[in-house]
Amino acid sequence: MRIERPCNRPICLTTTKGAARIRRRAQSIWSVVMKPAIAVLGTGRMGSALARALLAAEYRVTVWNRTAEKAAPLVASGGILATSVAAAVAQAAIVIVNVSDYDASATLLREEAVASALNGKLVVELTSGTPQGAREAGEWAAALGAAYLDGAIMATPDFIGTEAGTILFGGPGEIFAANKPVLLALGGNLQHVGEDAGLANALDSALLALMWGALFGALNGVAVSRAEQVPSGKLATLWQATVPVVEGLVTDLIKRNETGRLAGDAESFASIATHYRAFEHLLAVMDARGIDRVVAEGQDALFRRAIAAGRGQDDLAALSQFMTRQG
Amino acid sequence: MRIERPCNRPICLTTTKGAARIRRRAQSIWSVVMKPAIAVLGTGRMGSALARALLAAEYRVTVWNRTAEKAAPLVASGGILATSVAAAVAQAAIVIVNVSDYDASATLLREEAVASALNGKLVVELTSGTPQGAREAGEWAAALGAAYLDGAIMATPDFIGTEAGTILFGGPGEIFAANKPVLLALGGNLQHVGEDAGLANALDSALLALMWGALFGALNGVAVSRAEQVPSGKLATLWQATVPVVEGLVTDLIKRNETGRLAGDAESFASIATHYRAFEHLLAVMDARGIDRVVAEGQDALFRRAIAAGRGQDDLAALSQFMTRQG
Repeated sequence: MRIERPCNRPICLTTTKGAARIRRRAQSIWSVVMKPAIAVLGTGRMGSALARALLAAEYRVTVWNRTAEKAAPLVASGGILATSVAAAVAQAAIVIVNVSDYDASATLLREEAVASALNGKLVVELTSGTPQGAREAGEWAAALGAAYLDGAIMATPDFIGTEAGTILFGGPGEIFAANKPVLLALGGNLQHVGEDAGLANALDSALLALMWGALFGALNGVAVSRAEQVPSGKLATLWQATVPVVEGLVTDLIKRNETGRLAGDAESFASIATHYRAFEHLLAVMDARGIDRVVAEGQDALFRRAIAAGRGQDDLAALSQFMTRQG
Repeated sequence: MRIERPCNRPICLTTTKGAARIRRRAQSIWSVVMKPAIAVLGTGRMGSALARALLAAEYRVTVWNRTAEKAAPLVASGGILATSVAAAVAQAAIVIVNVSDYDASATLLREEAVASALNGKLVVELTSGTPQGAREAGEWAAALGAAYLDGAIMATPDFIGTEAGTILFGGPGEIFAANKPVLLALGGNLQHVGEDAGLANALDSALLALMWGALFGALNGVAVSRAEQVPSGKLATLWQATVPVVEGLVTDLIKRNETGRLAGDAESFASIATHYRAFEHLLAVMDARGIDRVVAEGQDALFRRAIAAGRGQDDLAALSQFMTRQG
């Protein structure tokens, strides 16, 4: 009964259905002639969406996939099917990669016939991974004389090619600026987040960490509500009313950490000790109801570290000081 | 350099400054005569705000506090200072309690001279605590012939007496309805959440669990951003753009659990396995940068439990099935 997942990303900056497709602008013959040829390596759901968006914007797109059948449907939209990565890269000025991970990407690109063809070209790595993976790929590309941008797609495939499609890019600002007109075919909300190729993945992981926090917190909330037989609908309704408040608290926590305002002050929402007194009620109800502390245990440990260090009157933001791995 | 915390609650349903004070309605002599006399036990910051709001609404309010000096300022506002709990209760039809915890409340109320005076009166327990604590207090009050409502104040003291002040109440609906005209002096947004006296505290803990999830997730996000030298301001700005998306994901998780739609389906945002692939990138960057897994460890454990049980293709909401304490 389980069906294929509709999304290969756990978070998307926009989920509104039916976002406007980026309109094809009227093209002169000249602008078509000047358009760089593009290779798309990897045509899973996301890679196919990328290729289709480029084809819709009238780029010459060569597609390659490990299992060629997944690339074949793109031919009907005007894509050129390449029989090898080397053949795809040979025909392109820009090589967009969207495969399962950086290791898979490296296996494709570091083949000698491919690597030697990359000189003078632009590699746009859209595969998900770590900041370090992106940096290593960027250094490897630079050594070959290739330009490199590393992007994190903050959208589900259905948002690719729409004005709302958001992609973060790390890498040289001038490379981003020069290629932005092309990349805009992929999504209307492109953001250059810094010169460091690792920054898009760093922000991706950081934003997902915030999202998972909220979702695992919800698992605790759901467990308590169910155990205490809270009437259906109450938790969601009341929680939605707190969203603006929690948004303010989280923003405050982030900004206090950026500016180092970790001590309790007149603008503090609540001290670590105040939070912990209420947290003990949560632990008590969880323990009484047999709810596993699997999520709460780490929160409890961090609270206790800060209080044991005499920081109970600090702002909650000061818990960040106890996040460095011990030993 | 640390100052006293400005808030004795870690969450407030509203933090907008300057919410409108509840207007005193024109009172006939008759309605003044009919107003029940009220005792407020505990005049810390919240208890004082409660007493002031009642005085502003022209109730006869007797106040008592363990250290009388904290109650004294209320005399200037028209409060009557009681020298004992028994004296305060003797003069009141409604007894509002807001002390440090339920044990402290029980110590005050179960004194024989007090307990014997509660027959026929209404106890409104606004002390923070557990659902079980509220239920026990409710049963104890019922045995004495007292009515009982248990409230969770979802607001900071500055919101008490304003239209935006939110208080959840558990207990008999008819008791709530009969006394709502009086309780409205405390806040304009009163919500009766069920007949069970424990429900207000249950929802309070559940909502706080959601809030702590978001805040501890933010600690992970801040740690990654700092370690990866994300430019200042980027995390908060991008995170704010994701808030509506995360709100949708959390609402979906809660509703799927209420309706049992835990398998992956066409409306699933992402499967457990999809989430976990991205989560592994977060763990990798945390490990590479020496960020403690203190918060992430429990998330990882829960993901792995579900995947080991063959539930990787389920909706993320199915993680709730692995929250029961083992052994």
